[in-house]
Amino acid sequence: MSTAEHDRPSPGAVGLVLARPARLLGVEPFFMEFIAGIEERLAEHDLSVLLHVVPHHEAEIAAYRRWARGGLTDAVVLVNLTAGDRRPAVLTELGLPAVVAGNWEEPPKLPAVRTDHAAPVREALAHLLELGHRRIARVSGPEDLLHTMARTEALRAGCAEAGVAPVIVAGDYSDESGTRLTEELLRRPEPPTAILYDNDVMAVAGLAAAHALGVEVPGRLSLVAWDDSPMCRLATPPLTTVSMDVHQFGMSVAESVLEVIAGGPVGERWSPAAEYTARATTAPAP
Amino acid sequence: MSTAEHDRPSPGAVGLVLARPARLLGVEPFFMEFIAGIEERLAEHDLSVLLHVVPHHEAEIAAYRRWARGGLTDAVVLVNLTAGDRRPAVLTELGLPAVVAGNWEEPPKLPAVRTDHAAPVREALAHLLELGHRRIARVSGPEDLLHTMARTEALRAGCAEAGVAPVIVAGDYSDESGTRLTEELLRRPEPPTAILYDNDVMAVAGLAAAHALGVEVPGRLSLVAWDDSPMCRLATPPLTTVSMDVHQFGMSVAESVLEVIAGGPVGERWSPAAEYTARATTAPAP
Repeated sequence: MSTAEHDRPSPGAVGLVLARPARLLGVEPFFMEFIAGIEERLAEHDLSVLLHVVPHHEAEIAAYRRWARGGLTDAVVLVNLTAGDRRPAVLTELGLPAVVAGNWEEPPKLPAVRTDHAAPVREALAHLLELGHRRIARVSGPEDLLHTMARTEALRAGCAEAGVAPVIVAGDYSDESGTRLTEELLRRPEPPTAILYDNDVMAVAGLAAAHALGVEVPGRLSLVAWDDSPMCRLATPPLTTVSMDVHQFGMSVAESVLEVIAGGPVGERWSPAAEYTARATTAPAP
Repeated sequence: MSTAEHDRPSPGAVGLVLARPARLLGVEPFFMEFIAGIEERLAEHDLSVLLHVVPHHEAEIAAYRRWARGGLTDAVVLVNLTAGDRRPAVLTELGLPAVVAGNWEEPPKLPAVRTDHAAPVREALAHLLELGHRRIARVSGPEDLLHTMARTEALRAGCAEAGVAPVIVAGDYSDESGTRLTEELLRRPEPPTAILYDNDVMAVAGLAAAHALGVEVPGRLSLVAWDDSPMCRLATPPLTTVSMDVHQFGMSVAESVLEVIAGGPVGERWSPAAEYTARATTAPAP
């Protein structure tokens, strides 16, 4: 590592801050799979992940300042970019090398491992339209996340082309929000015949909510999850899902991190393409 | 912190090595909840978790040597103790302050946050015996883990008292092992009428395997999970489970870590008691 020549040893750590309520962390497999992927590549270089869980971006920025002051990390991985995100500028100002996991087009320019969110939304929508669905809803993640916006925009554009008006409501990735929003959607005078969710937990919760209301899946309602997990595969019926290889995404981010630490050029990388896996929660519209 | 007077700043990190196949990490909520609990207390002291995922204990010990050499951690948290575990001795030899998350009685003596595994096993067994079950099976975690042994021993002792001979098979916490072992148990000439699992993922997989074989739950088969998660609550039917507040366990471990770092005495701590939550997968024996 390039830092090995300095007067103190390399910290041997790549920082990752997750800014979200700690109690939400355990419910989603995504971040543990992502970290495991990063670790798999870093371990070959004797690097570990310095993980910090904080409630919001202010605390995240405070952590970066502390890490920069103490020389505690070789680089950081930035996740969950939002519109007008201040963090890239702060990291640049602090001189902390960083890799963005996700799409980031604004200045300052940082190395990023990008994801195509539009293609899998369009693919899922095409399947639902082909099955005859016209009343389509989406239970999204938090609205300020860039990748939530990208998925919502892709759904709106695809629906507009098909002459369909989607209903879009925002959850927070928790099973509670999946339950509550699904119940609200199903109690509308014109309930949707298909719902797309932004993670696995909200989708499984939505399936249970539909059961509880006596709405047959997939007979009366089709459901599509995002992210795959044992929860989706083992649900009754097993959930149709849009998912990518999150472990591989983590490995790609680690590749860019290693290049950043080495001080050389950083390759343009994309996360693995998300794929639509049809299981038993999607069927022709009633 | 006591290390603040030294000539280099405190690393501001508490090391945690998870020695297991990286691809198994994402499936279980346990460790993310545990880490989130640790982080919640550490964050108040500007400390983060230095997380390292390695395939086996040899690599874990190599990480400790590297951390000790570089002064990269203030302390470490040791998890998943096994019979004849070498790691406590290595940590003592390296002078790395450590807290054991779990039961550890052998020398060297390390501060530990202990768990009573016997009481919840006995409670779950009492419920099953009361429901008339006599053919009882257990799908355990890896057999070399001290906490697997403690649970197995508690089940054997409780069954012996009741004049019942349990069948015990060992899984690896993955959904694949939960599926395979449940199928094997149900295809026996005298299949169990009740199965206790050692985590949530194997239990949910067991429920799906029973469905697939046409074995009605809970009519013909009762199931009890260990650890609770949205997976258990949202399964159809929702799973009866034995679980503790893992987040609180992590916070207690962090308390001991903070005392270790401060250099003062370390309190004797126990994890929160695991409780039996009856849901819809337990019923009278057929």
